[in-house]
Amino acid sequence: MLDRRTDLAAEALDLAQTGKEKAKKLSGVRSRERKENGFSVTDVEIFGKEGSEALGKPCGNYVTVDIRRIWQRETESFAEAVEILGRELRALLPKGAETVLAVGLGNAAMTADAIGPLAVRHILPTRHLQEKGSPFSSLPSLALVAAEVVGKTGVEAAEQVSALAAVLKPDAVIVMDALAGRSIHRVCHTVQLSDTGLAPGSGVGNHRRAITEDLLGIPVIALGVPTVVDGATLATDLLEEAGVNLGESHVLREGLFVTPKEIDERVQELARLLGWAVNAAVLGLSAEDSAALLG
Amino acid sequence: MLDRRTDLAAEALDLAQTGKEKAKKLSGVRSRERKENGFSVTDVEIFGKEGSEALGKPCGNYVTVDIRRIWQRETESFAEAVEILGRELRALLPKGAETVLAVGLGNAAMTADAIGPLAVRHILPTRHLQEKGSPFSSLPSLALVAAEVVGKTGVEAAEQVSALAAVLKPDAVIVMDALAGRSIHRVCHTVQLSDTGLAPGSGVGNHRRAITEDLLGIPVIALGVPTVVDGATLATDLLEEAGVNLGESHVLREGLFVTPKEIDERVQELARLLGWAVNAAVLGLSAEDSAALLG
Amino acid sequence: MLDRRTDLAAEALDLAQTGKEKAKKLSGVRSRERKENGFSVTDVEIFGKEGSEALGKPCGNYVTVDIRRIWQRETESFAEAVEILGRELRALLPKGAETVLAVGLGNAAMTADAIGPLAVRHILPTRHLQEKGSPFSSLPSLALVAAEVVGKTGVEAAEQVSALAAVLKPDAVIVMDALAGRSIHRVCHTVQLSDTGLAPGSGVGNHRRAITEDLLGIPVIALGVPTVVDGATLATDLLEEAGVNLGESHVLREGLFVTPKEIDERVQELARLLGWAVNAAVLGLSAEDSAALLG
Amino acid sequence: MLDRRTDLAAEALDLAQTGKEKAKKLSGVRSRERKENGFSVTDVEIFGKEGSEALGKPCGNYVTVDIRRIWQRETESFAEAVEILGRELRALLPKGAETVLAVGLGNAAMTADAIGPLAVRHILPTRHLQEKGSPFSSLPSLALVAAEVVGKTGVEAAEQVSALAAVLKPDAVIVMDALAGRSIHRVCHTVQLSDTGLAPGSGVGNHRRAITEDLLGIPVIALGVPTVVDGATLATDLLEEAGVNLGESHVLREGLFVTPKEIDERVQELARLLGWAVNAAVLGLSAEDSAALLG
Repeated sequence: MLDRRTDLAAEALDLAQTGKEKAKKLSGVRSRERKENGFSVTDVEIFGKEGSEALGKPCGNYVTVDIRRIWQRETESFAEAVEILGRELRALLPKGAETVLAVGLGNAAMTADAIGPLAVRHILPTRHLQEKGSPFSSLPSLALVAAEVVGKTGVEAAEQVSALAAVLKPDAVIVMDALAGRSIHRVCHTVQLSDTGLAPGSGVGNHRRAITEDLLGIPVIALGVPTVVDGATLATDLLEEAGVNLGESHVLREGLFVTPKEIDERVQELARLLGWAVNAAVLGLSAEDSAALLG
Repeated sequence: MLDRRTDLAAEALDLAQTGKEKAKKLSGVRSRERKENGFSVTDVEIFGKEGSEALGKPCGNYVTVDIRRIWQRETESFAEAVEILGRELRALLPKGAETVLAVGLGNAAMTADAIGPLAVRHILPTRHLQEKGSPFSSLPSLALVAAEVVGKTGVEAAEQVSALAAVLKPDAVIVMDALAGRSIHRVCHTVQLSDTGLAPGSGVGNHRRAITEDLLGIPVIALGVPTVVDGATLATDLLEEAGVNLGESHVLREGLFVTPKEIDERVQELARLLGWAVNAAVLGLSAEDSAALLG
Repeated sequence: MLDRRTDLAAEALDLAQTGKEKAKKLSGVRSRERKENGFSVTDVEIFGKEGSEALGKPCGNYVTVDIRRIWQRETESFAEAVEILGRELRALLPKGAETVLAVGLGNAAMTADAIGPLAVRHILPTRHLQEKGSPFSSLPSLALVAAEVVGKTGVEAAEQVSALAAVLKPDAVIVMDALAGRSIHRVCHTVQLSDTGLAPGSGVGNHRRAITEDLLGIPVIALGVPTVVDGATLATDLLEEAGVNLGESHVLREGLFVTPKEIDERVQELARLLGWAVNAAVLGLSAEDSAALLG
Repeated sequence: MLDRRTDLAAEALDLAQTGKEKAKKLSGVRSRERKENGFSVTDVEIFGKEGSEALGKPCGNYVTVDIRRIWQRETESFAEAVEILGRELRALLPKGAETVLAVGLGNAAMTADAIGPLAVRHILPTRHLQEKGSPFSSLPSLALVAAEVVGKTGVEAAEQVSALAAVLKPDAVIVMDALAGRSIHRVCHTVQLSDTGLAPGSGVGNHRRAITEDLLGIPVIALGVPTVVDGATLATDLLEEAGVNLGESHVLREGLFVTPKEIDERVQELARLLGWAVNAAVLGLSAEDSAALLG
């Protein structure tokens, strides 16, 4: 059987509750919907072995924010999305965290995987401005790294982050990456925050060692956006939707991406969104502040 | 009914000869297969109203070269593909053409549509080096333009090219663009040359005024590579292959692209391939010459 | 004698009035200083053969705006500079101009020469949105082109612009380019507007056919920023300042640029400034509008 | 007094032996000139406190290769330069080094400082291909990192490299960076190799903690190219050359860069040269191999 997976807990939950799988009793999962300033937010909590197996995800808290409003180009929607995401991200960071390492994962040369490294360019580092007496010395200390993919460096992203965390000893790590979704309706329309860390490259089908609290010994908050649906996954879903018993199809064996036509532009905007959300959560900057400071 | 279209004549021919449509008698189309230095080449000639309607393409000659060998990274395959494409392109240019305008169509900021403008960077312009006594004065005169999309300029690519052709008065125009294929097996694997011109943006679903001999009054040779399959087209094909009578599916209404995972890298290489093929056809440069002159 | 030239009329005037050259009576030149919303503006009018020879520039009106305030990152200074430049540019455009062609000159691959092509990306084209009934049909018609350098295309920028103007028949043309200054204090700190057109590439020492009303038959308004001082010019000035009678120096023979350290970042910001100024002058957009529409 | 400094030992030696400073006896410095396959090579050995003070550089071996031949576009000169640099670099690496970390220093967004991060893209990482049985398992292990500037990350490059070296435990580190020269004749024309490590950002006037064997506990080989002359340095030299006793000049206080006009293009080529030299030294790859493997 094909692995028709999604990195989104809310989507996994939808799937588990519908279709052929709905019979299953879902122990170990709690979820609720809420509205925040006009944005739909879904909280999914996975606990215990049962919950984890039911959704195929590690235990923890997953917050999904529907940000499709920013594509309607209403004047204020981008700034509002920054505010909401900043607030949700801050809620997942350990209370009183004073030093944070933000990590952009992914391959800058691959459009659908470039959100992480691009997001780093929209974050204001402050760790080097901590001398006493500096106007910035009261800000939390924020350090950044774009951890390139192992094929470009020979070093796993998890190793790069471990190495840096061992020296910087931050109170928490934020990792940003492109994710894989299963529904094309969520692609570029959803931001998932979680306190479970994440596995670099999962969005583009390259599973690598996960960057988690287990690995680093400190909380790891993940911030991700689905940018692609795997071609095989989409095809399978489509056929099942049409009631077809899936046999063999050559289409399904190819390494294909399904993306929105506007993927290049979307990725640029989403990287800015994630970066400014980190500025908001860690440094308390508004979207307007980030615009003025980072252009 | 959905328009499940392809810009490739060879593909349209395949479709017309197979599946439900095979009963149709194909008048007005001649085709043959040949091997050139290990590359498979398909010639399709469309003539008369019947041929044009059967394949949904204007009358003319279409040459399709299967270039997937360049992705195996055999040492010499890229240079060989440049040579074959240069030769096929020269055969389509009017005999004795001494001044040529090469045009890159597409949106440089959209990966799947960037082949045209990127290809222009790999071509050696010579028009400005034609003074008597210059070492280049014996070369044909080659002028270049990257005709950006109308959404970025307010000017249709066809208008941009007409304007320039009216002043430069070249013997022929070569237009380069990304195309839409219908089979994912041809995407990034095929170059189509034709003497029919082309409609900018057709590869990415933005139909614009065609750039043809009718418009310009001189021969227009097209050079294109399929970089995407439209999501709706692929889904429909897949369902029909599975014997499903297509009803309504929300998947089919979205503006989705299906591309190879490696699309960013592929587009870079294909642009170089097209550009060097133009250098070979017009200026007689080998791949090695182009590498030395253009880096 | 070395040609220690400047593209800035205000600078040429300063030089003509000071140093060894000050004895000269300056007929045919009128100038005045004014303040606009805190920005220093210098108007220089050159008329008659004498004025033109004295300053080495064609007759016409030159407006120089000192924009160094935008580098202090005061919150509102960028938007204010857009407003001032938009107003000054509109004053130079023919009254009631309803169709405008904006041209970015220069080499996008050469940092110090990239302002023109980069500026084009910050302008909103409207020519293709003029159908009756469209919400944009009441806006003036603005078309754009980035006219690449002849070494990349084989076609002089002046030819590219002539060709397009012959087809689009605009009421006026705006040309944007990097300029050469003579004083390092004006580099990246000054915008010059003039109604005299300009010669592409003059900023980087490649003199090409000028784009002027004489060539096109319609008003040509130039918008430029000095990004470099020629190395030889600076060295000569420095030596003269030190009272040295210039003999031979090997330093002066090299093709050197003197730029601010931050040239890459400056060029990005200045391109945005020029682009938004065009949006303001032709379409009446504020900096905030341009930000919302063009990102 | 102004600090008219150069990162090049060969240049410091020239200066120490000429002009006003020539009286000084140079103890603690040995040098010789040689030709390698048509390239001029200068070896400078600095030993003891006296040598170090005389040239203002740490003790160690400095090898300077004049590579200006590659700008004449003779067909083979680039490949030959790769070969020579590869050989000289290998001679500085510890014998039998089986694991190497190559580091690109600098700011990718600043043309004159981008050589380091750009060079990393031209190197083939092999550390992740070391499993037994892989066709690459016999190659030395090469890992890469582009250590961004502290202003972009909040983390000093020296800290980034220390952190990674502590985990990877390589036998040697190679650091690549842009340098500052004092003579415009050496800018972009010279590669300096040394076994002394280097201080990131020195080429662009941002002195940071040095990356040396003292810091890391393993040999650090530096590979650098001068891309700029500081404006103040050049001006001072010019005035002294003209016999002027330097007083105050406002020109000298500005943060100016003097670069060749072609700096953008030069930096691209030099990054490729350094990257391929590392491939040659560590992995034994020819220029042709690097071209085939890395494009």
